[in-house]
Amino acid sequence: MAFKEDAAQWFMSLQDDICNALCEADGGSLYQEDIWERPGGGGGRSRAFKGGTVIEKGGVNFSAVHGATPEKILAAFQLDKADFFATGVSIVIHPISPLVPIIHMNVRYFEMSNGTYWFGGGIDLTPLYVNKEDAQDFHRTLKSVCDAHHSSYYAEFKKWADDYFYIPHRQETRGIGGIFFDRLAATDTISKAARWAFVQSVGQAFASFYTRIMRKNSAYPYTEAQTEWQKIRRGRYVEFNLVYDAGTKFGLETDGRTESILMSMPPVAHWAYSHQVLPGSHEQQTLDLLKKGIDWV
Amino acid sequence: MAFKEDAAQWFMSLQDDICNALCEADGGSLYQEDIWERPGGGGGRSRAFKGGTVIEKGGVNFSAVHGATPEKILAAFQLDKADFFATGVSIVIHPISPLVPIIHMNVRYFEMSNGTYWFGGGIDLTPLYVNKEDAQDFHRTLKSVCDAHHSSYYAEFKKWADDYFYIPHRQETRGIGGIFFDRLAATDTISKAARWAFVQSVGQAFASFYTRIMRKNSAYPYTEAQTEWQKIRRGRYVEFNLVYDAGTKFGLETDGRTESILMSMPPVAHWAYSHQVLPGSHEQQTLDLLKKGIDWV
Repeated sequence: MAFKEDAAQWFMSLQDDICNALCEADGGSLYQEDIWERPGGGGGRSRAFKGGTVIEKGGVNFSAVHGATPEKILAAFQLDKADFFATGVSIVIHPISPLVPIIHMNVRYFEMSNGTYWFGGGIDLTPLYVNKEDAQDFHRTLKSVCDAHHSSYYAEFKKWADDYFYIPHRQETRGIGGIFFDRLAATDTISKAARWAFVQSVGQAFASFYTRIMRKNSAYPYTEAQTEWQKIRRGRYVEFNLVYDAGTKFGLETDGRTESILMSMPPVAHWAYSHQVLPGSHEQQTLDLLKKGIDWV
Repeated sequence: MAFKEDAAQWFMSLQDDICNALCEADGGSLYQEDIWERPGGGGGRSRAFKGGTVIEKGGVNFSAVHGATPEKILAAFQLDKADFFATGVSIVIHPISPLVPIIHMNVRYFEMSNGTYWFGGGIDLTPLYVNKEDAQDFHRTLKSVCDAHHSSYYAEFKKWADDYFYIPHRQETRGIGGIFFDRLAATDTISKAARWAFVQSVGQAFASFYTRIMRKNSAYPYTEAQTEWQKIRRGRYVEFNLVYDAGTKFGLETDGRTESILMSMPPVAHWAYSHQVLPGSHEQQTLDLLKKGIDWV
């Protein structure tokens, strides 16, 4: 079996594992499954979560698509023509409680018929209220995943996430970052198999970390005012995804399946003109931590 | 006084007239006024509406900014360097009732130090429930404004609006269109003064039309289910503005005042995975009318 088919199989079973873990931790969340086909080749299996006890709305999506390479990529590689194959899992979870952070994870593999290939992905956490203990837990988890594969990964991919998950027009990061990486291929010292093993570890780290955070934080009571703040912050999440997120842009521009791409949208978002927070409040403390370059480990 | 200063003065008084008319029709809406300065030159007067009896959230913004021309425009005109001046009024109103349409209007003037100048603008209506009578009223109003200036304006600018206010990834128009025009300068047969008179007429037509629709439609009762549909449609409004709207993109890319640019965001928006409407419902009838090329007149 070609590597790409292996990878697709593996991503599909990762989707299963993650969905099982989320359902178990949620204590009830069921998802709607849609199997879809891409007119140009391939398709996917989207799983939309809704109305759980912890998860308000989310998606755990698998796809494996192929066909003629989109113009933008051909141009970037100065190619006239090539076929591509892309597969991966993409997740966004919007919990009910403002004390449970929004999470995003994506792991993917891409190759073209000219032999070019790469891995990409990332995982980032968006707490509505930054809790230093959770932030440390998250970054330490990621660092240990990275360190098991290469000593430079965490520092490099953490910085990449800080730069990527940034909202220039708000001058704030989307959340507390995480790791982000793209176009990872083999180098003189790192094999394709080693890159793939790393990507698999990132995918596998998701469920145990996030279900731990779900269980712990969904137990805390919260107020109406905290729910309002959550919705304002979800508005920023929408702004990031629709204005800057490369995956969303790419999907919409290449006629991807809109409902699967926009599963990242929150169930409800609020916008208030010139929204202000009280000095010294937990909201202000959170805003103060939405910055690049914080060493959480 | 140079034309640009005249134009800015006129736009500022248009903002006053429109705010007065909206407050009167709303029977209570007050706005928060922010006078701001642009670091690169000029500034504006933003008026944010909130918590009225008809208007839930909105903005009626004036600005007159100047400085070094942004790179993108220089490149489009193959210029190395030029100063610019831009002034106009920009409006988006999100009413409380799902039976009162969202409206957007924008009129503007732009010039560069090399002598290039143009007018731009448009007005489009986004009913959450398309009412054929109101749609006809709206397009007839616009046609009569256009016809008073040039027999080709309505057909040309109506088509431009159909093409502009379109959401490709949803394969639907944002609403029932209206008129849109950009880069209008003098031609052999149309003077700059005639272009300006047209833009002024567009600006002046806004208040009488929209306050009429506000008064009429805010009197009708509506249901919770209609309010939910309104919020789903507001989500589409967000998608259009953040993914496609040229003014929003330009503003965010050129470090415009974020709170003034994003006054177009609704107070609340909902997203539901694969939202479906009932066959034959008023919602379905509305979706059937979110198409290009409908002759409303």
